[in-house]
Amino acid sequence: MPSLPESITCLIAELGKWPGIGPRSAERLALYLVQSEPEAVRQLAKAIVSARDRIQSCSVCGALTERQPCAICEDTHRDRSLICVVERPVDIISIEKSGAYHGLYHVLGGKISPVNGVGPEDLRIAALEQRLASAPNAEIIIALGSDVDGDATSFYLARRLAPFKVKLSRLAHGLPVGSSLEFADELTLSQAIEGRRTMS
Amino acid sequence: MPSLPESITCLIAELGKWPGIGPRSAERLALYLVQSEPEAVRQLAKAIVSARDRIQSCSVCGALTERQPCAICEDTHRDRSLICVVERPVDIISIEKSGAYHGLYHVLGGKISPVNGVGPEDLRIAALEQRLASAPNAEIIIALGSDVDGDATSFYLARRLAPFKVKLSRLAHGLPVGSSLEFADELTLSQAIEGRRTMS
Repeated sequence: MPSLPESITCLIAELGKWPGIGPRSAERLALYLVQSEPEAVRQLAKAIVSARDRIQSCSVCGALTERQPCAICEDTHRDRSLICVVERPVDIISIEKSGAYHGLYHVLGGKISPVNGVGPEDLRIAALEQRLASAPNAEIIIALGSDVDGDATSFYLARRLAPFKVKLSRLAHGLPVGSSLEFADELTLSQAIEGRRTMS
Repeated sequence: MPSLPESITCLIAELGKWPGIGPRSAERLALYLVQSEPEAVRQLAKAIVSARDRIQSCSVCGALTERQPCAICEDTHRDRSLICVVERPVDIISIEKSGAYHGLYHVLGGKISPVNGVGPEDLRIAALEQRLASAPNAEIIIALGSDVDGDATSFYLARRLAPFKVKLSRLAHGLPVGSSLEFADELTLSQAIEGRRTMS
């Protein structure tokens, strides 16, 4: 069987590197692209390169931004005494969508993970300490995932930030809203029971 | 809430135009891209544009190709008396993967569909007639989908190609291999019964 034209094979290989795109999706997308309007394809390629070129990390909080500092760090209407610590820049977007938070952020850039060779010195913890040094009454909300690495990182942070005497909290664990007991795993349920809230 | 940086919003809009990519996937891919190595992103954009620029339709059969005529049309080891009529260039790839066919192809470029304003004159039927004029003993296999438009197009083709006195056949309909009766719809089952094959 004659294989696909080489430029399509190359494109499939490139698209297949994307997260969540399997070999069949990559093929479908590649075939779609080579049959699209040349002008539209050029515009897409430009959007990709230009986004990559313009996006950088905020020098203060580590969020994705086009300018320094980022819009959130510059926003004077936000509660500057609150700092929410997240693992990745995209976590900020999730929290912003919830609309429930109006403070600042700090991106760690990962989680402590001895297995993967990630230690505290690989994360943006020193930068967080610097921010705290100039904001004595800050409150820290640790919003890391609740897997083993996330837990370890949260506890490490709590210990390391203790000298700053900041108020420290973690996101609540419990039942997802709208879900019923039968779909909750044992760990989530036990956390939900432990963290139960009094009803007035 | 401060919206995402503009270049990311643009990129999400571009990726969201792709088939099978919903808003959430588009967002995930865009955020992945702006956090990838700039060099890798540039290489991807280049692969997209270069594939689009180099891929054209084969002047004979209409397949996707980088040269004229395409590798299949040029392959002297293939059975040149067989022409398989398909709707889209990508259908060739599906049939080639099956490994069950070793003839030539002809891409119609669509199906007759009065609802969508697609008539016979919009398809590459005249080009097929030209090919048949110079290949008197050709056999045509019509490999269109079996929806309403596919059926209509198949029957139209059969009538229009009758003057050429070519041998004409359609792909068999029936149970997908490996599937059981209980998952087959009534139409497929009735076609499978009608097209039953004698066992020697």
